[in-house]
Amino acid sequence: MEIAWIGTGIMGAPMARNLIKAGHRLRVHNRTLKRTHALAADGATVAAEPAEAARGAEALFIMVPDTPDVESVVAKIEPALSRGQLVVDMSTIAPATEQAISARLAKGGVDYLDAPVSGGETGAIEATLTIMVGGDESAFARAKPLFDVLGRRVTYMGASGAGQMTKLANQIAVALTLEAAAEALLLAERGGLDPARVLEAIGAGAAASWQLQNLGPKIIARDWRPGFFIKLIRKDLRLVGEAAQSSGLALPGLALMNSMFNAAAAAGHDLDGTQAVASALEKLASLK
Amino acid sequence: MEIAWIGTGIMGAPMARNLIKAGHRLRVHNRTLKRTHALAADGATVAAEPAEAARGAEALFIMVPDTPDVESVVAKIEPALSRGQLVVDMSTIAPATEQAISARLAKGGVDYLDAPVSGGETGAIEATLTIMVGGDESAFARAKPLFDVLGRRVTYMGASGAGQMTKLANQIAVALTLEAAAEALLLAERGGLDPARVLEAIGAGAAASWQLQNLGPKIIARDWRPGFFIKLIRKDLRLVGEAAQSSGLALPGLALMNSMFNAAAAAGHDLDGTQAVASALEKLASLK
Repeated sequence: MEIAWIGTGIMGAPMARNLIKAGHRLRVHNRTLKRTHALAADGATVAAEPAEAARGAEALFIMVPDTPDVESVVAKIEPALSRGQLVVDMSTIAPATEQAISARLAKGGVDYLDAPVSGGETGAIEATLTIMVGGDESAFARAKPLFDVLGRRVTYMGASGAGQMTKLANQIAVALTLEAAAEALLLAERGGLDPARVLEAIGAGAAASWQLQNLGPKIIARDWRPGFFIKLIRKDLRLVGEAAQSSGLALPGLALMNSMFNAAAAAGHDLDGTQAVASALEKLASLK
Repeated sequence: MEIAWIGTGIMGAPMARNLIKAGHRLRVHNRTLKRTHALAADGATVAAEPAEAARGAEALFIMVPDTPDVESVVAKIEPALSRGQLVVDMSTIAPATEQAISARLAKGGVDYLDAPVSGGETGAIEATLTIMVGGDESAFARAKPLFDVLGRRVTYMGASGAGQMTKLANQIAVALTLEAAAEALLLAERGGLDPARVLEAIGAGAAASWQLQNLGPKIIARDWRPGFFIKLIRKDLRLVGEAAQSSGLALPGLALMNSMFNAAAAAGHDLDGTQAVASALEKLASLK
């Protein structure tokens, strides 16, 4: 299939590569051109402009950082789109923006899906991403074989925006579950325990979580190397806050985690992994 | 073995029963006498006073609600204890209190372990409890065959109090991970999603947790029947707060969860399951 891919960063590049490996013809575009070089070497055609990539492609994927970036890409490709094309946004952005874009493109006969992912760089490389999809079910059926190339758990969540809303629910769960791991391990250390033994003792019961199991050992080792940037969870939690605001929702744990990740960023951890929130917590707790 | 068991409530009774099934002779005592009747029918001898149960028993177990209850039981059995006996407290109480009791009993040649458990009533009945043990390693070795009758994951954590400290780390992790599940599911529902489908979509990735998997479906069904009482997690988090205070630790997530569980209790959920914290959250979030 002729596929356009806009945004070839840490996530987008390996995802596009998996489509090439599956036998598709890729035209790629990235704001910073040099990030397309490796894909070109793998057989992708590089487009200087998003519209150039989009023209005539059967499916077009977007994987960029934030809401304004998606809006900007869509504004650039819109004049080049034609009836019957499928556009899939895999970025994590505001659900309401997806609904607006979807409604606008539908007028020109273009299908639009929001399909954010979870699973990080490793999931992108290994094609084990979780993909949460919103939009028309017929468009989902069209895209499903391509999603299956990119990820492992692909779930249709409902109308336009539902994929993004699911991702936001995922992110608030991720953030608070990480805080749970960080506070438990810090309490254990300050209480004189061997934190690795605590992980072993509590890691299979009611306290068990992916965060504790995977980021707990990094917290213990004070290893802040990124799996997922603090900078990006801060952006995601801002989106959660906007969604909560428009639903009239009070989410006290969200408020806490905004503060904690802001504190971590202020302490220089914005480009470290989310587990560096434990460093901010430790600074709070420096009284001996 | 001749074993005394003090405290035959929801947890204590099935634990004592498992020791009887394993062939031990049990003398049981409970403040409310009628809670010993079922065990008597299973072959236990009922003692009217703790000291009567304790006298001459090789090992003595305590399973009562809170710090003052353990202090009261220990005060009553102390005159009856003799050199070489083993006392095991399986209640969840303050680590510092365990250290004080342990040091006092050691003077009379009595071994003392703190060995709180996780896994709830089901774990007690099915003998699948997680047991976290503090005290002398030689005393742990003596008790280990009995722990293996009561639970599945038995971990020696270090000196006296280390079992309780581990349990407290477990409880703060449990509390915040539950809040993660509750906020995620409420956001999803208010965002118009099918929360069961959200559980399916996010439950195997970075948001995965025992709390989300086991209590998520109950939150969705507004099923507040207790696995573990709000009343008891409130007590446990009070102990976490005391431990954090004496370590000079700031635990902002703990502060949040004290407020959330207090709100749930104030709304009448003290004898409901911990998942009823989602009900308090929903009340906070009643703006439509």
